[in-house]
Amino acid sequence: MKKWVPIASGLLAGFVAATISFADFSTSTNNQVASGSTKSDAEKVYVPFGEKDDYYLFASGGHSGQMFIYGVPSMRHIRTVPVFSQDSATGYGFDEHSKKMMGGYTWGDLHHPAFSETKGDYDGKYMFATDVGNSRAAAMDLETFTVKDIINVPNTSGPHCAAFVTENTEYMFLPTRFAVPIGSEYKPLDEYSQQYRGVMSAVTFDQNQEKLNIAYQVALPPWSYDLSDAGKKSSADWAVMTTYNTEEATTNLEINASQADRDFIVLFNWKELEKMVAEGQYDEVTGQKMIFPEKHKGGIYLVPVAKSPHGVDVTPDGKHFIASGKLAPSMTVFSFEKAFEAVKNQDFSGERNGIPILKYESVMEREVNPENALGPLHTQFDDKGMAYTTMFISSEIVKWDPKTGETLDRVPVQYSPGHSVAAEGDTVSPDGKWLIALNKIAKDSYLSVGPSHPESMQLIDISGKMKVIQSSPVNPEPHYAQIIKADKIKTIEVYPKDENNKLATYKQEDAKIVRNGNEVHVYGIAMRSKFIFDAKAKRPDVIEVNQGDKVFIHLTNTDFDEDITHGFAINSYNLNMEVQPGQTNTLEFTADKAGTFPLYCTNFCSALHQEMTGYFLVKPKN
Amino acid sequence: MKKWVPIASGLLAGFVAATISFADFSTSTNNQVASGSTKSDAEKVYVPFGEKDDYYLFASGGHSGQMFIYGVPSMRHIRTVPVFSQDSATGYGFDEHSKKMMGGYTWGDLHHPAFSETKGDYDGKYMFATDVGNSRAAAMDLETFTVKDIINVPNTSGPHCAAFVTENTEYMFLPTRFAVPIGSEYKPLDEYSQQYRGVMSAVTFDQNQEKLNIAYQVALPPWSYDLSDAGKKSSADWAVMTTYNTEEATTNLEINASQADRDFIVLFNWKELEKMVAEGQYDEVTGQKMIFPEKHKGGIYLVPVAKSPHGVDVTPDGKHFIASGKLAPSMTVFSFEKAFEAVKNQDFSGERNGIPILKYESVMEREVNPENALGPLHTQFDDKGMAYTTMFISSEIVKWDPKTGETLDRVPVQYSPGHSVAAEGDTVSPDGKWLIALNKIAKDSYLSVGPSHPESMQLIDISGKMKVIQSSPVNPEPHYAQIIKADKIKTIEVYPKDENNKLATYKQEDAKIVRNGNEVHVYGIAMRSKFIFDAKAKRPDVIEVNQGDKVFIHLTNTDFDEDITHGFAINSYNLNMEVQPGQTNTLEFTADKAGTFPLYCTNFCSALHQEMTGYFLVKPKN
Repeated sequence: MKKWVPIASGLLAGFVAATISFADFSTSTNNQVASGSTKSDAEKVYVPFGEKDDYYLFASGGHSGQMFIYGVPSMRHIRTVPVFSQDSATGYGFDEHSKKMMGGYTWGDLHHPAFSETKGDYDGKYMFATDVGNSRAAAMDLETFTVKDIINVPNTSGPHCAAFVTENTEYMFLPTRFAVPIGSEYKPLDEYSQQYRGVMSAVTFDQNQEKLNIAYQVALPPWSYDLSDAGKKSSADWAVMTTYNTEEATTNLEINASQADRDFIVLFNWKELEKMVAEGQYDEVTGQKMIFPEKHKGGIYLVPVAKSPHGVDVTPDGKHFIASGKLAPSMTVFSFEKAFEAVKNQDFSGERNGIPILKYESVMEREVNPENALGPLHTQFDDKGMAYTTMFISSEIVKWDPKTGETLDRVPVQYSPGHSVAAEGDTVSPDGKWLIALNKIAKDSYLSVGPSHPESMQLIDISGKMKVIQSSPVNPEPHYAQIIKADKIKTIEVYPKDENNKLATYKQEDAKIVRNGNEVHVYGIAMRSKFIFDAKAKRPDVIEVNQGDKVFIHLTNTDFDEDITHGFAINSYNLNMEVQPGQTNTLEFTADKAGTFPLYCTNFCSALHQEMTGYFLVKPKN
Repeated sequence: MKKWVPIASGLLAGFVAATISFADFSTSTNNQVASGSTKSDAEKVYVPFGEKDDYYLFASGGHSGQMFIYGVPSMRHIRTVPVFSQDSATGYGFDEHSKKMMGGYTWGDLHHPAFSETKGDYDGKYMFATDVGNSRAAAMDLETFTVKDIINVPNTSGPHCAAFVTENTEYMFLPTRFAVPIGSEYKPLDEYSQQYRGVMSAVTFDQNQEKLNIAYQVALPPWSYDLSDAGKKSSADWAVMTTYNTEEATTNLEINASQADRDFIVLFNWKELEKMVAEGQYDEVTGQKMIFPEKHKGGIYLVPVAKSPHGVDVTPDGKHFIASGKLAPSMTVFSFEKAFEAVKNQDFSGERNGIPILKYESVMEREVNPENALGPLHTQFDDKGMAYTTMFISSEIVKWDPKTGETLDRVPVQYSPGHSVAAEGDTVSPDGKWLIALNKIAKDSYLSVGPSHPESMQLIDISGKMKVIQSSPVNPEPHYAQIIKADKIKTIEVYPKDENNKLATYKQEDAKIVRNGNEVHVYGIAMRSKFIFDAKAKRPDVIEVNQGDKVFIHLTNTDFDEDITHGFAINSYNLNMEVQPGQTNTLEFTADKAGTFPLYCTNFCSALHQEMTGYFLVKPKN
């Protein structure tokens, strides 16, 4: 067994702050047609008008709170879809429905996106994501690219590595990056080991109701849980998560959480946990079904791993899981089969907090140490089962064979890649062809936009020898991403008429304003190129209320035409919403300011869009 | 003189809603190398790693409230810079300074961007923009790409056509799209012509103080003021604005504001207005110096123009202004010299609201009607003085010669262009080379993201026969844009140390937490890879307060290294801010929730970024 490469704590700061390695790369030949190749790099990434990209890239937007949609291979930014943060362009967080869904928050830190899966393959139906900032999870429908549900996850703080889904989207597991007391109540940090927990949540999504739900939670030890992956095929009932700060340090984690030479991978059997819950093997805490491993035994194991691991990734065939230790310069290949055998034989080397520790030697298959490759973080796969690992410190992607450990290829990226993402890379059958490095540091790669730089995504052609063929700046901050074949996603272009929707108004003559005490409901229409709020009024495009009235504006876009979206804003009232073709949307607010306020369509819709206006008149109280 | 082409009001709806014309275009040959050309379209737009784009594109973000920065010719989205809307990625609208600057608003509708100018040329120092949604103006500094000031513009509603600046950035003029009563108080619409006004504001920017200020306002008639432009060279003291709804309609503007066959261009001499104000020729109203043209005579004239004009653009030589009538299929070239002569000779045909009307025939030079070109909106220019006009209805760009009216070239764009923007297009010396069409409708141009489509920007090579060579999806919604030579912008990469900043903490040992009654000030440091809030505490990365305390977190990023930005969030507290290299930033909030809340760096900064955490502990009241 290879010796661990220890890193003296005192060296850490220097190690981490080390100058980015400007690995050898050539740019002058980037755009030249290689001999024997029919297309230049420029032509490989160019998608002329009339053609479309082959793949969608869904990149997490990090602390922007949103999801970024790009086309691959053009690397063009198609759309930012709001998830956890307000977005006035679409009215997200402004209209009544989305505002309520956001639960009082105006931002989030969107970490890992995950497509819904059927038989281990992306099925193109939903996209899930988590919010590290405010401990939430969201589900986005891919017919409309809108968020259908957001759930608050109690007892946890920062579901960083999630969402990742099981083979048929039975569950997504939300491990937590930060330990907190159960219920998040105030507890002194001196009582950390006793009072704090790193709770993992098993979340389900009901596709009929489009609702997220917490099935159960597991009160893991107060460690930090990082990246995770679900098993596949023969390992489909299992999942793995890395964990660091098993030292249970409560300050200066840079040093104190890097003391132990080994941390753990948490290996658990969710089918068994599901059974335990069904059999009542849990405590009810804060309204949740909570499994306490020290009390409710079974289904969860620890596998020792090189210190402070980040990524753990299951191979497409489901036979292995690969851990990358950010402070140890090696990837470790573990065998599910060996792990199952060790579980069966109770081949344990001890336990922590009541959870058995499997023997490292019994589960490990090999350690892989490509020469001078530093800071392995995350591994993706191609159609041949080859692995591609991001090297944060040495700023490169290393291609290697998980079956032999042999290094096959390396390509420098600019700079400091966190994750990378391969085409259909998390499925049972990756596509090969494309890999995108999600680089944390752009430095001087692009035109400068001041001290706050963009991040950088680089497209790598992996069909032959790896080559970076496009560099794409991106808003802060993609953490993880997934790439799906374009033809798997079937959107709708127009919302269908819903005669059961009591808030919708489809006929011009039905537009009306209804007063009920100090509540005013407007049932209005937006159409090219006017608003109709009250069909019978002298001025159908004017809303007049009294100061202090509670106003509900229910607006239906009756242009059932592709790409004819209307907007609705009232000047100085800090309100904007979008009504997509056929959609009905509601603004709810109090008319607290008296005066004369123009209202208008904010979304350019026709040659007479400028004329699509009206007035909101608020009579003063006295 | 050519007869006006009248459009029967009854036909308007059909005219405007007409199917977009899918003009003849070929895509199959887009990417082929044209004979005699050395580069394919793909290669023309490709910028390999190690090289940079030649130009910045600053595109307004419309109801997103933000400014979009793209590179040209690659058309890569480099960054979205927050201006009028909250942006959690940078903490804009969350940190104390920007929150205050936003004045209680969380969104805006960013319309027209304008670079600061020196001698009629973009000087690369500042970018100005206006908010139609909440009647504000903003100034962005191009050393840091951050907003330095936002000003509320009273008495106005929707400064749509602004900002446009005079030759040496003496003023930007903010005309208003909507008429409101002065003071925006409640007035019935039956009193519209008497009580409502379309106030134009003259705004100055003090570059030393980095402060916007309203110099004076003009109480124009209650019409809608649309696009505008400042004069150049011999016309530098003048400016022009289009206006529609001179019918003073108060409902259904689609029909009622399209009755009169002619509307107006407002032509004014800002040097003369400045003089009038200096001489006390104004009334003080709502704290503003207000010129009432019916009372304070001089400096403002009306020029009749084809009905419902949109764009008015001054030629680079400053000799002409070109109006485009969205409901008349013609561009009209007017002569400044003729206008000055008419003013001198009082060659008036009457007046409206005390403002003299110049005779159309005396000012008009020619009407230009390219065959079947419908919906001219906005004109840009190249280095030869040739004009490029967007045709909204016929979805094309028409190149023509303002000196002869001859149509020189046409190219279809996809679809419905509002504005277009040429390289350095609004200066006295445009560059030629590139023109970008800002298309309102993308339809099926890109991978579908549901019923709400992206907009579409198309890059046109205008160095020879016009050709669309790149199509770029874009978030909603660019209205206008400007393109500046990359080397004109000089950013800083790191904020310099400011020893006079009492909120900054540069030395680790100076980090401290100071309590003053129930106010807690944290003077902290963010550095790779830890927070230091209290250097002397047992846990320097922990903040403990009492429920109800008012908390100020002053955080300095002491990593004076390019591209090492830190973030700061407290879990579940709906807070995030960015501290750029060397920067000090403040969060101010009330600790209203008791409990244990992890805090962490939101901006991936090093291999131990995950360890850059701490706790915010809030002791419950009882």
